[in-house]
Amino acid sequence: MHVTLVHVYVLPQSIAGFIEATQENHEASIKEAGNVRFDVLQDPEDPHHFMLYEVYRSPEHASHHKTTDHYARWRLRVEEMMAKPRQGIPMDWLFPA
Amino acid sequence: MHVTLVHVYVLPQSIAGFIEATQENHEASIKEAGNVRFDVLQDPEDPHHFMLYEVYRSPEHASHHKTTDHYARWRLRVEEMMAKPRQGIPMDWLFPA
Repeated sequence: MHVTLVHVYVLPQSIAGFIEATQENHEASIKEAGNVRFDVLQDPEDPHHFMLYEVYRSPEHASHHKTTDHYARWRLRVEEMMAKPRQGIPMDWLFPA
Repeated sequence: MHVTLVHVYVLPQSIAGFIEATQENHEASIKEAGNVRFDVLQDPEDPHHFMLYEVYRSPEHASHHKTTDHYARWRLRVEEMMAKPRQGIPMDWLFPA
């Protein structure tokens, strides 16, 4: 498994737009071969802070995600919404086995 | 949905024991009514750092988890393994809808 926790901080005026763009990315990403999780979470303590929990069966499946049209469209749409560069934290998957 | 990111830092000598105890907790927890996710992740940059990604259908299901025998056993087993108190971060669930 290939796991990434993507932390995104968006500008105050971009919360609704980010959610809309990310819903579209989510819906296409969960249909990709090898996708296991593409959960989108929002921090109740700081609604500008989102976490995307992305899990793919292999590094190749995760790399393929970055070549898709929906990823390119998302990246372009959200680029100007970010308060700072997004941070992708890799994690190792232990369970479920 | 009720989401918690549980960050745990264990003592150097407790990594294997923590993984074993947490596997047992994971296997019982995913059988609970209302459990949606109980993923166990390890930080490749710091193998003492684990993240449990726990999602339940409702706050009631999440509260029920804390009354189970397997949670009580896990809590007791891992209590002395922790380098510092564990931290549970609540998040709001956006997608999948």
